[in-house]
Amino acid sequence: MHSFEELVREFTVRFDKPHFPVHPESLYAPGDYFLTIGGKRVRPILCLMGNELFDVLTEDAYNVAIAIELFHNFTLIHDDIMDAATLRRGMETVHTKYGSSVALLCGDVMMIKAYDYINKISLDHIKAVIELFNKTASEVCEGQQIDMDFEKKQNVSFDEYLHMITLKTSVLLAASLKLGAIIGGAGEANCNHIYNFGLNLGLAFQIQDDYLDAFGDPQKFGKDVGGDIRQNKKTFLLLQALKVASSEQKEQIEILMTTNPADKVEQMLTIFKDCKVDKWANQLKEEYLEKAYKNLDEIAVISTRKKELSQLAANLIKRES
Amino acid sequence: MHSFEELVREFTVRFDKPHFPVHPESLYAPGDYFLTIGGKRVRPILCLMGNELFDVLTEDAYNVAIAIELFHNFTLIHDDIMDAATLRRGMETVHTKYGSSVALLCGDVMMIKAYDYINKISLDHIKAVIELFNKTASEVCEGQQIDMDFEKKQNVSFDEYLHMITLKTSVLLAASLKLGAIIGGAGEANCNHIYNFGLNLGLAFQIQDDYLDAFGDPQKFGKDVGGDIRQNKKTFLLLQALKVASSEQKEQIEILMTTNPADKVEQMLTIFKDCKVDKWANQLKEEYLEKAYKNLDEIAVISTRKKELSQLAANLIKRES
Repeated sequence: MHSFEELVREFTVRFDKPHFPVHPESLYAPGDYFLTIGGKRVRPILCLMGNELFDVLTEDAYNVAIAIELFHNFTLIHDDIMDAATLRRGMETVHTKYGSSVALLCGDVMMIKAYDYINKISLDHIKAVIELFNKTASEVCEGQQIDMDFEKKQNVSFDEYLHMITLKTSVLLAASLKLGAIIGGAGEANCNHIYNFGLNLGLAFQIQDDYLDAFGDPQKFGKDVGGDIRQNKKTFLLLQALKVASSEQKEQIEILMTTNPADKVEQMLTIFKDCKVDKWANQLKEEYLEKAYKNLDEIAVISTRKKELSQLAANLIKRES
Repeated sequence: MHSFEELVREFTVRFDKPHFPVHPESLYAPGDYFLTIGGKRVRPILCLMGNELFDVLTEDAYNVAIAIELFHNFTLIHDDIMDAATLRRGMETVHTKYGSSVALLCGDVMMIKAYDYINKISLDHIKAVIELFNKTASEVCEGQQIDMDFEKKQNVSFDEYLHMITLKTSVLLAASLKLGAIIGGAGEANCNHIYNFGLNLGLAFQIQDDYLDAFGDPQKFGKDVGGDIRQNKKTFLLLQALKVASSEQKEQIEILMTTNPADKVEQMLTIFKDCKVDKWANQLKEEYLEKAYKNLDEIAVISTRKKELSQLAANLIKRES
């Protein structure tokens, strides 16, 4: 069994190379540029870990892991166009550097390239792999669409947000694990357990991300703390605050969101704390993490094989207490 | 053997139905809208004809035909964003009707859906089908990128234009035929002949299209005659004119392209005729059509089976003499 770090090293050997032809450079150089600006490669490593849980690591798993990372980068390139984001990991986004049309096409060819890697795997699992890959890819697009729809929507319920964020972020983590498991020959029940492990872990991670964006230490968080609040983004925290706030607090929140005062973040955080949204978020995160550990327990392989996945969950989700 | 019209009917039965789930409607309704605005369905029918040339028509061929048509529509949706085109077949383009972000995502899910249909075919040919499908899909994107690059480029050679237009339009026609042939069990030599038939037929068709855009009868052509000239589009005709024109005519062309006078189209057509570009284009079209017929001859099946493909070529390309 390999640790996360060992798998990142092994994956990097296969991934950090040109994936595209040289010509036309105007189309392919932007794709190579974007792939070099990095990322934690969590999703492909989940695929490898899902594979190694059931079998020795195979080249098929590496090829699907590469496809997953290419797909993930394709969604980032297109999402950045839609969100008009200028920076990603501190570097210029593709559409900022090369223009929207190039970014659009560059995403398209990256998606096609993902299927090239899937097409390398043995016939044994190719249909199941393409089926889950496609289902997940569609769901990620659905999540992005629903997220955009939310921007124009006055009231978003907790369940609607949960559904959106599950599609937008969790299903790809879950599918990455399950794709590895499928290639590793796992049966249906084990495939479902590892998928649910990824789904619940993804939700715990998203709750933590929303929490850190509001309450995180700017030094440690790395991102712009308070960004979600400044942008009026619907997050777990805001939806919970709107749910439990008094009518006076609700009014205050709405005034803050429309008037955008200089101390908007501070004022909103005070309301969040008054509504105990911080404690609620930590508890909810803990619940999803517990569900994830339960899913991991249910997988019918000896527990020593599960150590790395359990460790990964612990590393991704910081427990407060 | 089925005629083009019979195959269109059979294909329509399978294609004219909802390809997407109902929810989220904001994502999927635009895709269903675009698929209902029609098109001649030439590419999927080529796939079916390529299949029937070698075997009885199979459901695998229909599924790949559907994938091809979905892929083609995905490229149209994304191209329309890049070209800022407001109308397609007289109807609003997706980004005009629903916004660019929706059109981008709607194209993405249409592309994913294409692979869903490919994944339905038997394992016998799935790898070869995905390989050619992906190669072609990448080439079509390359063609679009090179076409956009040409807009900023002063001098485009005939060979560069030929390369671009081959990628942008011909390879998909060629691949459609070959994909059908692969599923029909054709050997490598026959697959190459039918591919080249499609490539040359596609080029003959493009030359005809460029010709009709300039010299066509507005009543019959359907499109906006003179549109390419008004938009300074690099076409077979313009490139040939620039090649053979006197320095005085060249200067005139450049003045027309920069000053855009009201009678730009008429003046440009006069120069084209003086340079015998119309005759040249008809001759070149004829040459590619002859090559295509030669490729068809070379396919090692009895000639009676080739009748429908030969008839299709004759219907697509109108001979002047």
